[in-house]
Amino acid sequence: MIRRRGLLAIAGATAGLAGLPAPPAGAQEVVEKRVFEAGSVQTRGGATIPKTRIGYQTMGELNAAGDNAVLICHFFSGNSHAFGRLAPGGSAGYWDAIIGPGKAIDTDRYFVVSADTLVNVNVPDANTVTTGPASINPDTGRPWGMGFPVVAMRDFVEVQKRLLDSLGVKRLALVAGPSNGGLQSIEWAAAYPDFVLRAMPVIAAEIDAWMQGWLDLWESPIRLDPNWREGDYYGQGREPPLRGLAEAWKIVTLQARDRIWARQFDRKLPEGQDPARRIADRFAIEKWLDDAAMARARTSDANSFLYMVRANQLFLNDYPSLAAAVAGAAPRWLVISSPTDRVFLQPGVEEFVAALRSAGKQVQTAEVTGPLGHLNGVVAMAPVAEQVRAFLAD
Amino acid sequence: MIRRRGLLAIAGATAGLAGLPAPPAGAQEVVEKRVFEAGSVQTRGGATIPKTRIGYQTMGELNAAGDNAVLICHFFSGNSHAFGRLAPGGSAGYWDAIIGPGKAIDTDRYFVVSADTLVNVNVPDANTVTTGPASINPDTGRPWGMGFPVVAMRDFVEVQKRLLDSLGVKRLALVAGPSNGGLQSIEWAAAYPDFVLRAMPVIAAEIDAWMQGWLDLWESPIRLDPNWREGDYYGQGREPPLRGLAEAWKIVTLQARDRIWARQFDRKLPEGQDPARRIADRFAIEKWLDDAAMARARTSDANSFLYMVRANQLFLNDYPSLAAAVAGAAPRWLVISSPTDRVFLQPGVEEFVAALRSAGKQVQTAEVTGPLGHLNGVVAMAPVAEQVRAFLAD
Repeated sequence: MIRRRGLLAIAGATAGLAGLPAPPAGAQEVVEKRVFEAGSVQTRGGATIPKTRIGYQTMGELNAAGDNAVLICHFFSGNSHAFGRLAPGGSAGYWDAIIGPGKAIDTDRYFVVSADTLVNVNVPDANTVTTGPASINPDTGRPWGMGFPVVAMRDFVEVQKRLLDSLGVKRLALVAGPSNGGLQSIEWAAAYPDFVLRAMPVIAAEIDAWMQGWLDLWESPIRLDPNWREGDYYGQGREPPLRGLAEAWKIVTLQARDRIWARQFDRKLPEGQDPARRIADRFAIEKWLDDAAMARARTSDANSFLYMVRANQLFLNDYPSLAAAVAGAAPRWLVISSPTDRVFLQPGVEEFVAALRSAGKQVQTAEVTGPLGHLNGVVAMAPVAEQVRAFLAD
Repeated sequence: MIRRRGLLAIAGATAGLAGLPAPPAGAQEVVEKRVFEAGSVQTRGGATIPKTRIGYQTMGELNAAGDNAVLICHFFSGNSHAFGRLAPGGSAGYWDAIIGPGKAIDTDRYFVVSADTLVNVNVPDANTVTTGPASINPDTGRPWGMGFPVVAMRDFVEVQKRLLDSLGVKRLALVAGPSNGGLQSIEWAAAYPDFVLRAMPVIAAEIDAWMQGWLDLWESPIRLDPNWREGDYYGQGREPPLRGLAEAWKIVTLQARDRIWARQFDRKLPEGQDPARRIADRFAIEKWLDDAAMARARTSDANSFLYMVRANQLFLNDYPSLAAAVAGAAPRWLVISSPTDRVFLQPGVEEFVAALRSAGKQVQTAEVTGPLGHLNGVVAMAPVAEQVRAFLAD
């Protein structure tokens, strides 16, 4: 079953998550992608982005008090498409299993918002609206490239806060998200403890030096690609650094999965390949990674990848320590982890939970399981749906 | 303590293991590096290497029966220098804590041999003798480059077998090694079950598709470096692909350690660096990895790295499955793992042990611990010395 899925998915690797099965079909809730003009933003690093815009989508209705809102934050390679379908018959959002009418995060009761981040990697995707290095710098009329200001995870939060303010939201009943979205949730809970009642970080924990190092390894192939040209590859006649970007996605793609997932490729060779005799030939796992990652590279932007890495590395950068960050954070937490996560290792999650408890927070935990390791927190949320529902009702 | 070590070690990253403390001083046993001319080798892939040579070192005396020999196999980036010192006052071999007169692997009783592998990465090191892509092809008088035949882990074993035969060894009381050396030990035990009495793979398990994929990620920066030139970078006026090779070593260097090791870099910045404001600036962990990996790149060869990756990917390639490989293997095993190993994950080690037990082997296990993750199996062996001694006496 798993075997067949993975192999079939090679051709379908252009969506947000390379080579994953589509969520199960359910109610076909259609959502509209909207654009929020966030205006001029002063970054945590002290720079100014004169004109910012991000995309977003909503489901449900905000109540009169403005306090039934839920914010969903997306993973590293994702966008606002966490729930519903952008068109009838279209693909469902990545957390559609737990968000919608009657679902764990019940849009009959909650007003659910999900936004694209700044420096979102999915620049070529018409359904992603972001401001980042591929955007036009209004002062020059040309793409920012590596002249775009460094943005931190906290800057993502600030732009989302403006969006929520513009929508009339007075309080978040929940902020949640997987991976990078979990980091945003933590950053939100630390930044706005009175605005956020509950936080649900999934497959996320602190970005310590170990993780900062890994994020650097993820991005380093981009900088090696001669087509990267220090980020100056936009414009006619220039080739983007697709090879480097694909190698970067390969690292993310493998590390975000678990060894159990890879079993389908054990001792398999692609047709015509003989790596025992020819040094340039490939094993099946390599071929799959090559194809999935190149497809992903064609739908993303290399400079934005670099900026997204940096935003992650700057997680909780306003605080001297994790303990300091969570000391005054929002009160109620549901921390969901995947025991086979090879990105956010389980001991790191346990330390994060311990830090919350030391700070006197109410903390529940849950686990997501399956062959996909880290990505269980994106695609295998259905089994924890009732725990999510109960947390939200608590 | 650990913090200080790691930071101090930056400058000393040119040796076999980037940034690791030197083994404790003990008896100053001096060993001699010798060269074995292995002659023409037919590879498992069907090619011929007309002239092969590898370096080796020994300690202790072979008995009349030729059955008190121990073979030590080295890790991915290592060489034969597992024990003793190559000159008085020189640095000790990586497993010197457990090999020597009176030590766990007692050279007063055993004749211990350790050899450089084929395609060893340490080409620029005068104390490494190997045959690989940087060697001269006698048919052309020029370096082989990527025309060198693919070699498998089993080819390493075959050349070592010739060396042992030349030394008069009739039976191995033990074959052992860490990481890549553990893989060689397993390959040895499968290939020569009557010649090998005991095997002690340390921080090693099966190379499944997951690991094949990781090995590909390790090497991919080399292929991206424009100086690689499809491997044709030898000779005057050509720059080797140092940047790509350094990025490759960065992945190995971080993955071979654990997050606990990285704590020394938490929330630290190198002098003058401000990554929250400047996209090109670095965090402390990045700077350390940059420096350690570039130092390592200067003492290694990129093409050899690619061939070493392939040899690892071809682990047990002669067998249809792990179960088939171990079915007829040597009888006695001590499998030593590091619970925080991020290269060979603990579940993979457990599956390997289960495969041995299913095949009816006598299996003991032990664990090495410490902040270094995978590398505990190289530098933290002293605490398991008595278990090694008892295994060898059993």
